[in-house]
Amino acid sequence: MTEKKIVGYSGLTVPGFRASGISCGVKKKAKLDLALILSDVDAEAAGLFTTNRVKAAPVLLDMERISSGKSRGVVVNSGNANACTGKKGYDDSQKTASLVEKALGLKKGDILVCSTGVIGVPLPIKKIESAVPRLVKKLDPQGLSEAASAILTTDAFEKTFCAKKTIGGRPVTIAGIAKGAGMIAPDMATMLAFFFTDACIKSRVLGKALREAVDATFNSIMVDNDTSTNDTVLAFANGQSGCAEIKAGGDGYEGFAGLLKETALKLAHMIVRDGEGATKFVEIEIRGATSAKEARRAVRTIAGSMLVKTAFFGGDPNWGRLIAALGRAGVSMDQSKVDIFFGHVPVVKGGLDAGNERRAAAVFKKGEFTVRVELNRGKGCARLWTSDLGYDYVRINSSYRT
Amino acid sequence: MTEKKIVGYSGLTVPGFRASGISCGVKKKAKLDLALILSDVDAEAAGLFTTNRVKAAPVLLDMERISSGKSRGVVVNSGNANACTGKKGYDDSQKTASLVEKALGLKKGDILVCSTGVIGVPLPIKKIESAVPRLVKKLDPQGLSEAASAILTTDAFEKTFCAKKTIGGRPVTIAGIAKGAGMIAPDMATMLAFFFTDACIKSRVLGKALREAVDATFNSIMVDNDTSTNDTVLAFANGQSGCAEIKAGGDGYEGFAGLLKETALKLAHMIVRDGEGATKFVEIEIRGATSAKEARRAVRTIAGSMLVKTAFFGGDPNWGRLIAALGRAGVSMDQSKVDIFFGHVPVVKGGLDAGNERRAAAVFKKGEFTVRVELNRGKGCARLWTSDLGYDYVRINSSYRT
Repeated sequence: MTEKKIVGYSGLTVPGFRASGISCGVKKKAKLDLALILSDVDAEAAGLFTTNRVKAAPVLLDMERISSGKSRGVVVNSGNANACTGKKGYDDSQKTASLVEKALGLKKGDILVCSTGVIGVPLPIKKIESAVPRLVKKLDPQGLSEAASAILTTDAFEKTFCAKKTIGGRPVTIAGIAKGAGMIAPDMATMLAFFFTDACIKSRVLGKALREAVDATFNSIMVDNDTSTNDTVLAFANGQSGCAEIKAGGDGYEGFAGLLKETALKLAHMIVRDGEGATKFVEIEIRGATSAKEARRAVRTIAGSMLVKTAFFGGDPNWGRLIAALGRAGVSMDQSKVDIFFGHVPVVKGGLDAGNERRAAAVFKKGEFTVRVELNRGKGCARLWTSDLGYDYVRINSSYRT
Repeated sequence: MTEKKIVGYSGLTVPGFRASGISCGVKKKAKLDLALILSDVDAEAAGLFTTNRVKAAPVLLDMERISSGKSRGVVVNSGNANACTGKKGYDDSQKTASLVEKALGLKKGDILVCSTGVIGVPLPIKKIESAVPRLVKKLDPQGLSEAASAILTTDAFEKTFCAKKTIGGRPVTIAGIAKGAGMIAPDMATMLAFFFTDACIKSRVLGKALREAVDATFNSIMVDNDTSTNDTVLAFANGQSGCAEIKAGGDGYEGFAGLLKETALKLAHMIVRDGEGATKFVEIEIRGATSAKEARRAVRTIAGSMLVKTAFFGGDPNWGRLIAALGRAGVSMDQSKVDIFFGHVPVVKGGLDAGNERRAAAVFKKGEFTVRVELNRGKGCARLWTSDLGYDYVRINSSYRT
């Protein structure tokens, strides 16, 4: 890992990719709401999509298009999810892609589409149509940050990360951009995330690395317990680094998959930190469950508990709520064997209060801390990052559409 | 049903039952925190208990004791859950019962025990010990209201209901008292509820009627998505009405079961109306699911969604959040067949916006309204009552223990 150089925000460029972000009027207040990211050449592409049975129109379109394993890029609008919009919605997604494809002289199917925002309102396709020429004209190797800004909805800040590492004899770059602040639950807790790399890798292998990365990152975060109709993760690899081809099980795979996972983890953590109204960033870890599956179920139940989340917000180290959530998670447990730690402070030992409330309270006062539950039953582990539930979550979500 | 006479609050008495409520110092601010309800004679008794794997000490004790089918009554403390308190906790519950039993000259096992409040803190048994003589002395046929007050924690108001009906040739009374404002989710969404009747009914039949009543009431409400370690529903029947014995399938059963269910429903609705920070009372109904089980799963997922609940709070008829919750509920559905009604206003027709936002907003402005989802797939139905998620939920739960 010594070869790796984190480039960060200022260096958010990937050879052979250009991007742009503009305001087209889908959002009310002249905010950036239309983004395009384009590879100069055909890129290998892979995607993961929401598990929600109600899928937005662009999700349905992308699921068809991604099967080719090739793409030139993605156009994204924010402010309107184009979900529950029926046949017209699907046609509007196709039209959005088609407008970009035509403006760039690409062939049909080259461009993927994502939408995020309010559900059930027809996409104002005319506004997008008028804006596409401007969007295309603005494409720039330095444009990723602007694109990252244009995909946001209730997010408070842009989510971007860029990392470089020598793989297959050449410096390889991965840049990621994401949006997401609410409707964040495991199993596509992503809203939207896009990765762009100049690595040489086939779509099948890229897809494998992407699934691995998403499991440990976007599928392991929780803001609220909702799952969006529009969640999409896409990865594009255009081979412009000239590195040796990265093959599953081959020399460069581990390095590439690690770099992708790290980029995804940074973005996932940013999503939690930007959780609607979030004031805390909490890592919850379950150890000693009878299986990894049970550990995951337990960690998700705890992180999804409104009582646990309000206790985080209040800085109240109320482990009773945590153990009550654990007890309803449907996992094999012996209450008298449960140990709980807040940071390094043992708060429950063998199911009983460990008498460290004052020290535990000091941990909970921090903006960032860990909660560890030892079930002492087996070897199943799971880890998840979550935010608290405070007044601002209510404020943001009780006035979303106004 | 014409024979029935709702007696309500002022007439909260049941022949052969006495009750009392006092302050013993478990709660900080000299509030009522210790209650006793006693039958003058041996009563038939039945109970239902939390499904949480972490069970409070008094729950464990009552589960043993109720198996006899007989009891004289229940002593309840609020302010401390006596949960996660180990062997000492169990001994403290036994001691609490024993103190009451001795003071009343009863035999061991005659008295059940309930606790509600903070988890993981040893029960201040000395305070209870000093208070029992006062508690016993205060027993009064008019004391149920005071007892109902003494079992509350974060509740804003007492939950009591009393109904009378001629059954088996005699007027039979059922009174119910309950507490519960948070940690309310289906499957023992009760916190605590107690029913007292002068009907003549064996514990087995009483238990059957109780299970039926709870399924349609306490198991069909949701405030947050948490389930307590202490949830308990108890029913006592002392036969003092002198009515003919009510047998399963017999003449009086339907009347009795209906009266019990109605009493439970009134209390369940009070719990939702008193949901922590609740400003809305919403009935959610799913129809046309492929099975009742799927309908229940769907209605619970919708009612548990933080985004749906904040939309209720904000009075924003944002059906997109509702359909997104439906889509992740794991139920069989065809999005293009879904109809949704807010009150009588169709808001979604065939999965698409019905164009009635203004009328829907008027419904959402009310303090009380219904949400109906028609899946148009089969005959499965489910109904649930829930509250919204507002600032006060956060306020109450982020400072619970201070």
